[in-house]
Amino acid sequence: MPIYEAPIRDFKFALNEFLNIGQYQGKLAGYEDLTLVDPILDESARFCQEILFPINQSGDEEGLKYDNGKVILPKGFKEAYQSYCEMGWGSLTFSQEYGGQGLPNVLNMPVTEMICSSNLSFGLLPGLTHGAISALNEYASEELKQKFMPKMVSGQWSGVMCLTEPQAGTDLGLMTTRAEPQADGSYLITGNKIFISYGEHDASENIIHLILARLPDAPEGIKGISLFVLPRNKVNDDGSVGENNGVSCGSIEHKMGIHASPTCVMNYDKAEGWLVGEPHKGMRAMFVLMNEARILVGLQGLGIAEVAYQNALAYAKERPQGRSLRGAKFPQKKADPITVHPDVRRMLLTQRSFTEGARILSIWAALNMDIRHHHPDKEVKDNADDWIQLMTPIIKAYMTDGGSEVANLGMQIHGGYGFIKEYGMEQYVRDVRITQIYEGTNGIQALDLVGRKLSAHMGRYLRAFTHPCNDFIEENRDNEAMADLTKQLYAGLKSLQQASLWIGQKGMSNPDEAAGASVDYLRLFSIVVIGYIWARSAKIALDALAAGSDEKVFYETKIATAKFFLNKVLPEHYSLLAKITAGVKYLDIPDVDD
Amino acid sequence: MPIYEAPIRDFKFALNEFLNIGQYQGKLAGYEDLTLVDPILDESARFCQEILFPINQSGDEEGLKYDNGKVILPKGFKEAYQSYCEMGWGSLTFSQEYGGQGLPNVLNMPVTEMICSSNLSFGLLPGLTHGAISALNEYASEELKQKFMPKMVSGQWSGVMCLTEPQAGTDLGLMTTRAEPQADGSYLITGNKIFISYGEHDASENIIHLILARLPDAPEGIKGISLFVLPRNKVNDDGSVGENNGVSCGSIEHKMGIHASPTCVMNYDKAEGWLVGEPHKGMRAMFVLMNEARILVGLQGLGIAEVAYQNALAYAKERPQGRSLRGAKFPQKKADPITVHPDVRRMLLTQRSFTEGARILSIWAALNMDIRHHHPDKEVKDNADDWIQLMTPIIKAYMTDGGSEVANLGMQIHGGYGFIKEYGMEQYVRDVRITQIYEGTNGIQALDLVGRKLSAHMGRYLRAFTHPCNDFIEENRDNEAMADLTKQLYAGLKSLQQASLWIGQKGMSNPDEAAGASVDYLRLFSIVVIGYIWARSAKIALDALAAGSDEKVFYETKIATAKFFLNKVLPEHYSLLAKITAGVKYLDIPDVDD
Repeated sequence: MPIYEAPIRDFKFALNEFLNIGQYQGKLAGYEDLTLVDPILDESARFCQEILFPINQSGDEEGLKYDNGKVILPKGFKEAYQSYCEMGWGSLTFSQEYGGQGLPNVLNMPVTEMICSSNLSFGLLPGLTHGAISALNEYASEELKQKFMPKMVSGQWSGVMCLTEPQAGTDLGLMTTRAEPQADGSYLITGNKIFISYGEHDASENIIHLILARLPDAPEGIKGISLFVLPRNKVNDDGSVGENNGVSCGSIEHKMGIHASPTCVMNYDKAEGWLVGEPHKGMRAMFVLMNEARILVGLQGLGIAEVAYQNALAYAKERPQGRSLRGAKFPQKKADPITVHPDVRRMLLTQRSFTEGARILSIWAALNMDIRHHHPDKEVKDNADDWIQLMTPIIKAYMTDGGSEVANLGMQIHGGYGFIKEYGMEQYVRDVRITQIYEGTNGIQALDLVGRKLSAHMGRYLRAFTHPCNDFIEENRDNEAMADLTKQLYAGLKSLQQASLWIGQKGMSNPDEAAGASVDYLRLFSIVVIGYIWARSAKIALDALAAGSDEKVFYETKIATAKFFLNKVLPEHYSLLAKITAGVKYLDIPDVDD
Repeated sequence: MPIYEAPIRDFKFALNEFLNIGQYQGKLAGYEDLTLVDPILDESARFCQEILFPINQSGDEEGLKYDNGKVILPKGFKEAYQSYCEMGWGSLTFSQEYGGQGLPNVLNMPVTEMICSSNLSFGLLPGLTHGAISALNEYASEELKQKFMPKMVSGQWSGVMCLTEPQAGTDLGLMTTRAEPQADGSYLITGNKIFISYGEHDASENIIHLILARLPDAPEGIKGISLFVLPRNKVNDDGSVGENNGVSCGSIEHKMGIHASPTCVMNYDKAEGWLVGEPHKGMRAMFVLMNEARILVGLQGLGIAEVAYQNALAYAKERPQGRSLRGAKFPQKKADPITVHPDVRRMLLTQRSFTEGARILSIWAALNMDIRHHHPDKEVKDNADDWIQLMTPIIKAYMTDGGSEVANLGMQIHGGYGFIKEYGMEQYVRDVRITQIYEGTNGIQALDLVGRKLSAHMGRYLRAFTHPCNDFIEENRDNEAMADLTKQLYAGLKSLQQASLWIGQKGMSNPDEAAGASVDYLRLFSIVVIGYIWARSAKIALDALAAGSDEKVFYETKIATAKFFLNKVLPEHYSLLAKITAGVKYLDIPDVDD
């Protein structure tokens, strides 16, 4: 019953108009042939709309079957995964050396968004595989890479990340899974992990586990954790799949949402594995996977927001109810469509300004990943890395909070129908909710932002955003058509700078001050970033209109949405600054501390 | 797995300390014997904790069975309803003339909250019956009252409200159900209704429908709607239940939450009914039921918030994860409980400041209902009515938005476990979500506030709040212990007054300005109301401490929670005012209007 149409025009706005990726053609690996962009977008859109989207509701309803260690995905999932692999959607960005297509992240990001919109439960499978390959690619020995990567790149084997234990979630230092070194250089890994997405399933012939465990001589805590790779089934010398490697799925969780994505309790009983990276430095290697996964999870928020918005808009345009307060808009009909009601428009614009703004943020992140990996100029590379370091917690937390907000608004716009399964909105609300929790709760992302990113290198990461934002405001100061936007953006940026200074100063003497302000600070930072993106988008749209574009309505809508965001969302910064600077002294709870 | 303990101490704070209901003893009908309060609270708490709460999770999991027009409630529900009736919980507030106990609303409100906390799905059944009785009591003829009320008061027959049709939800004027007058003064009612909660079920021997329909000579739209009462099964002359009255349940909806509460499609085929109130003035009579239902729905938000908070707090106190940033609080253990983390405390305090503040608001509303009905002084009566008129949309919308927020925070505090069914948090998130939608979406509540309540009698309703609030600030201006609170409250009240003025002025020339600002305005109004409640609560706590109370921690926690709300929640008013006064011009969407 719900609908989904890939937002191709908006992807192109982000790629060609906002980021102007054409400027990198021939200058950045992967950007050699940009004529591929349009057909790849179109083809992947078709795959998502025609293969993944139709099994989204049925997958939710049918759910998973657990049978004595086996996990059976809902009808159509295995076949969809096979098509996914055959069409090469999983191998876009990987090196041709391991069977990949050597294409840029900037192209993979829209594909990922479309997958998340169409079928979030499905998307976790290739998404986690992608991250596992990236971690192996960066930290594994060539031998391990040759052993695992080609079949993971092709999708024949899937990948999975294994961190959490019952007593060790956010605090991974508490984990107890252990690894015993063997004479041949391998390790036998024993322990239990929980909340392992796609830890077991029936869509790929083998599953490659990237798992955190402790060596016998490991120091306590987070500094005694090493990363290992182990296959569920042993790999024979000829590369074929052998017997089980002591890896079993003990049970699967019953969850609020993502019913088609298995969340597994995994048991490891002397499973043979190999060290990835250095001993006791597993977190460093795992962070490659985790950072990628955090951006993926942000995309999940965006993907659900997009499909929720599309359905809310379609419903609102067709649902007649009440009359415009300024007189009937359609007097010949019994009622006006609910789009005439200002509060419905406020909800639609809240959704839209989030999705289109977050979309640009995500594709911008992909561009900076490409630059960080491949740009010849070290300064440009480093600057791109700074930007990604800063934006990763923002993308994860803001885009998933936004995903939940937008899905809930979609339900609200549907009225009572939103609560009924058939209409699909309630699945979006349930599915997207986990994105605010997994891959580090959004509170943890906020701590990362204030604790690691804000303070790093004397605020250098911060400047990767504030300097260009400030320059943009300066450049457009005298542009009257932009005045409405730059004025608001300036006020937002000022609040952000005051908050940053306050946290920097207060946090020095009392780290709880920074921690207590962190979630409000992340939100403040995020809306200023999106405000900047919208102001720049509006500038592009104004220029296009001035140049006589024949897409008048498209660009006028960009400008209207920008004005909405800067005037009706961004003003939140006033309150966020007030809450932040109120300080941690208001967080006492005598009867809890008693 | 989840826990619930009725917040008896806090009910007593609201009743005895904040509202000082003792002052009405002997002066207000129902307040004759206040020694009943404690035993009734204790007994109803026991009933909720021991009978209703244990079947909440099982009811969600088992759900409803629909079998050829019959609806079977989950295991234990029928028996729980019988106990509920036998113990007299449904008849507390009704007149002894019809078998009620003549007790005040102020006592019923805590009972309702406890029921909502324990089992939201169950609570709809007696809640809707209560509203139906109130509407009959106010508008039905004595003959109809005698026919239906005694068995509804006892609970033997349940009551149900039937408004919505597929094409007519918010806009009831579009409804088509019709009523044909018969020679004997009765009517035959024919039509279809949807979203009818407990329209059919197996817990009571008959179901009494209050239904909106059109008479043959009815004018079009909302002014041509009349209210009728009809029983599912005819009532024989001896009062026994006879044959079916042309009423059938066509199907039940599959929903996101409240799985144990049937949401029915109801068909009426020449069902015999009687007019309640005057022809074409059905909305007036239905509003008795709807206003009561709106306050009930607000209570549902509060009820879920309370149980979500209790579980989040219990989990947070026991979950060790990480260390306090200011050094280990429990160095002998491997980790500190997560209550040491400022952001967890921020979430807990957000929950708590909502539930305790909203609780006082709801019981205050009950006191004003009692005063409105029974007070001898007309001015006092009218003032209580003004207060209720004003607060009804606030109670419905703010308390359900807050319920969702608090349930979601409870899930967030649980981390990954929050998403797992077993822990119960995800059910709270799913169940409470409908409260923001039914009984008039929260957007409709906001329109009621700006369109009907703000402008009524030249702002008289508004002054029922702003005058006492302002007086309180004045009285405490020189109280240094209160300075932190009154300063913030003053700023909030000022924003509210500016926003009210802006809406009043702008709305006059363009009603869309008021409508576009309405949701932000309702939120602004609500937090100032709760801010006032907290400031007064803190004053009471300070006085109790000064008087040497031995409940030191209880009162200190009240003060700390008040300070949190006024300094970390109320500052939202700055942004809300900015968003409101930005105006409706930012709500254009060119490609939607195209």
